[in-house]
Order: sequence, then C-alpha cells, then structure tokens
Amino acid sequence: MNSDTLSVSYRGYIECLNQQDWNNLGRYVSENVSHNGKTLGLSGYRAMLEGDFAAIPDLYFNVALLVSQPPHIACRLKFNCTPVGMLFGLPVNGKPVHFEENVFYEFDDDGKIRTVWSIINKSAIAEQI
Amino acid sequence: MNSDTLSVSYRGYIECLNQQDWNNLGRYVSENVSHNGKTLGLSGYRAMLEGDFAAIPDLYFNVALLVSQPPHIACRLKFNCTPVGMLFGLPVNGKPVHFEENVFYEFDDDGKIRTVWSIINKSAIAEQI
Repeated sequence: MNSDTLSVSYRGYIECLNQQDWNNLGRYVSENVSHNGKTLGLSGYRAMLEGDFAAIPDLYFNVALLVSQPPHIACRLKFNCTPVGMLFGLPVNGKPVHFEENVFYEFDDDGKIRTVWSIINKSAIAEQI
Repeated sequence: MNSDTLSVSYRGYIECLNQQDWNNLGRYVSENVSHNGKTLGLSGYRAMLEGDFAAIPDLYFNVALLVSQPPHIACRLKFNCTPVGMLFGLPVNGKPVHFEENVFYEFDDDGKIRTVWSIINKSAIAEQI
C-alpha cells in the first residue's frame, strides 16, 4: 500500500467512526489492536469508541492534518463538541469545548490498524470549563 | 525534498536540540516559526527550548516513531528525565519521570521548520509524582 492508498483507507476509518458504523469497524481495525500500550482487541476498541460517543453525543472526528508513510499514519484530529457529563475526569457538563488529538497508527499487512498511540490535549479542556 | 531526506534533516534538528547547539538552531528552524498557534520566531523558539533545559537539566529527545511525508513530519518523542522543580505546573521536584510528546511539523520551501503542533502527555507525569 502506498501513502495515498493508506490515506484513503484511513479516511474510510474516520468516516466509519463518524457514522458510528460499528458493524464495519473490523474492515479497518485488527482483531489484535492495541491502544496506548494496552491490547484491547476489536471488541474492546469498539467498546471504547461507543463509550466516547455516550460521553459526547455530538462527537465528530475532523482530520486537520494527515501524514502518511506506510505502514504508519499520523493524524491531528480536531474536536468541537458538547460532552454531557464528565470527560477525562473533568466536569464538562454540557459546555461546548474544543480540543485536539495527535495520534499515530501502525497498520498490519492486511492494511488494518494494529497499534495506536494517542495523546489528547486534555489541559485545553480544563481551561475552557 | 523526499521523505528520506526530510527525515535525515529532522534527525539533525533533534541532534541539535540534544547537543543544545543553539547557534545552529537556525539551520533547522525558520525565523518565522510558530508553536501551537503562537508565532515565536527563531529567538522565541530558542528561548522556549533553553527554558525546557533549565527546567530539565537531563532533557534528552528520543525519537520513538517518525512519519515523514513532505512537507510534514510527525514524530512521537519519548522522555525519561528528572525535572528539578515545577514542570507543566506540576511539582516534580527532582523525581525521575517519563512522558511522551506527539508532535507535527510543517517545513517551509527552505526545508526549515515553520509550524509546530505539539501535545505532551502531561497527565502521565501527574500520575508519577
């Protein structure tokens, strides 16, 4: 897979998240996926994402910057959303907030996401509430 | 510049930081550099880095993962260090800590860093002190 086809596949993954199309998540994510050093597997990864949408009903992943060099993608994601209660241990309680995530992905030989290293700008949220 | 030559240039920048070779910082960083939306310029960027080394005398930038697609680099940096006092508003006071930075760079037509978007895993430090 070259950098362009990997980018197209990744944008398909982001679209899958934004549609909450969980039945197709396995097209993009490996059964053995790990997130920040913790092996979640596909079902655990799906559960994590479903939890994110429960905490943030209007969650939407905006790709601000995408850097592709197979087998890796790095993406800067931007979020403008309204968490209903607690988020990252912070009492957001329905206040609109914006924050960013800088995240790296490693894809396996089947072109599926195998490893994720994510950092979210949580301190930005603390300053907004 | 292709992805390999951009990676080599970026590793030169990291070596420059680790050597605290401030007189050569301008080989890698634009006079108009901005960091997380704030225009610092080369002198402000150097002052920021000198401040980092003052707060963390044993600061060392370890490249854990590098993704290169000109004109962008994304890098996951790992730090194992001993901040002497406060760091990111946290009273570290000489305790060894480890944390990560996921950072994106845009290079200008002269191959110098023009824009930086960085997120540091500050909450990891809070959990270690």
